[in-house]
Amino acid sequence: MPVNPNASIEITAFAWVPPFAEGFVRDLRARWACEEMGLDYAERLIDVTSPRPASYLREQPWGQVPVLKDQGIEWFESGAILLHLGEKDARLLPLDLQGRARAISWLFAALNTIEPRVMEFATINVFAKEETWAIQRRPSLLTFIGVRLDGLADALGEKTFLAGEFSVADIAMATVLKELQDTSLVSSRLRLSAYLDRCLARPAYQRALDAQIEVFRRTSAEGA
Amino acid sequence: MPVNPNASIEITAFAWVPPFAEGFVRDLRARWACEEMGLDYAERLIDVTSPRPASYLREQPWGQVPVLKDQGIEWFESGAILLHLGEKDARLLPLDLQGRARAISWLFAALNTIEPRVMEFATINVFAKEETWAIQRRPSLLTFIGVRLDGLADALGEKTFLAGEFSVADIAMATVLKELQDTSLVSSRLRLSAYLDRCLARPAYQRALDAQIEVFRRTSAEGA
Repeated sequence: MPVNPNASIEITAFAWVPPFAEGFVRDLRARWACEEMGLDYAERLIDVTSPRPASYLREQPWGQVPVLKDQGIEWFESGAILLHLGEKDARLLPLDLQGRARAISWLFAALNTIEPRVMEFATINVFAKEETWAIQRRPSLLTFIGVRLDGLADALGEKTFLAGEFSVADIAMATVLKELQDTSLVSSRLRLSAYLDRCLARPAYQRALDAQIEVFRRTSAEGA
Repeated sequence: MPVNPNASIEITAFAWVPPFAEGFVRDLRARWACEEMGLDYAERLIDVTSPRPASYLREQPWGQVPVLKDQGIEWFESGAILLHLGEKDARLLPLDLQGRARAISWLFAALNTIEPRVMEFATINVFAKEETWAIQRRPSLLTFIGVRLDGLADALGEKTFLAGEFSVADIAMATVLKELQDTSLVSSRLRLSAYLDRCLARPAYQRALDAQIEVFRRTSAEGA
């Protein structure tokens, strides 16, 4: 795997997260893109258990991960990082104008049309499962997400990936859909379920996931 | 104003929306960017009151607006459209690498870190105000949005705009913050409130808003 302390690309990641967040922290998106292109990257680990130092808040306004540095230039927000990595190479962003427009439109669709309601769902499931408001809100939210997923499935149609060839849009969309894996929202839509399987079966995804989890195992062992 | 039926740029907008949505439909973002650069654009009006035709769903998977066409290339999602318009011109996206990285990071931050919770808040306020779950959820959501806004205000600091000079990131962020204008979330944070005023005081914003509203007035008069 391309984790390499001397790489010119550096990605921040959390040193530890609660078990429910393993495999979901967004440095996964940046790692996945690097793995797809075989780009080495260094990890810089951030302690999620204590307040972030002011120096990190200057890089990331909310102390989140990932931040990516590449030859002295800095990006924050996983979407901006995916776009930057995609621009390096036709493997993650088509070079033709319409293909590029389509991939970038789908990148924003994943993050601004699908993910907001999935975040709302994750909040309910992880932090408020037993609360009355969450129990009452759940059905209408699931219906709403279902409508969005129907539109996504129709637009995907018979295509293998959102913009035809695999792109950064699929990294964003697959990491969003993955958050619904414990529900029937994706599994009941065969086209989407096959699409998600196709994305997550990519060796680059598996290596990125392993790299994120490996950090948690290592830091847990060091702390023990 | 640069609405011009013969322009090479075409933006879709709704012919009519309920009063609460006037000034909030996202074609406003695309119009605002065009106005900042003095770019002519044509309007293509979509009927929000009936199911979208299959031909429009092929352009926009959920039948939303805006879709932008520019010299035969198509984009959907207001974020992708802002990025495309920004790339035309240094007036909306810095040319230096770090400035560009910062503006794009903030564009995604507006749409993927701030707006998702603001959407959740808007859902409560517009569609579920009297529902028990909404009343119970409101306080924790407001606290959460407040934390995000504190991070935003700290990161803005003494800067005039998010990436220094005005950019597409400010169009995205200002249209998000505007949705909180009926609360004290922005007005109680003087830095943010001054920032929002600064954005909305731009003549290009006002012209874009007028152009959106003008459509609703015209189509209402035609329908009457």
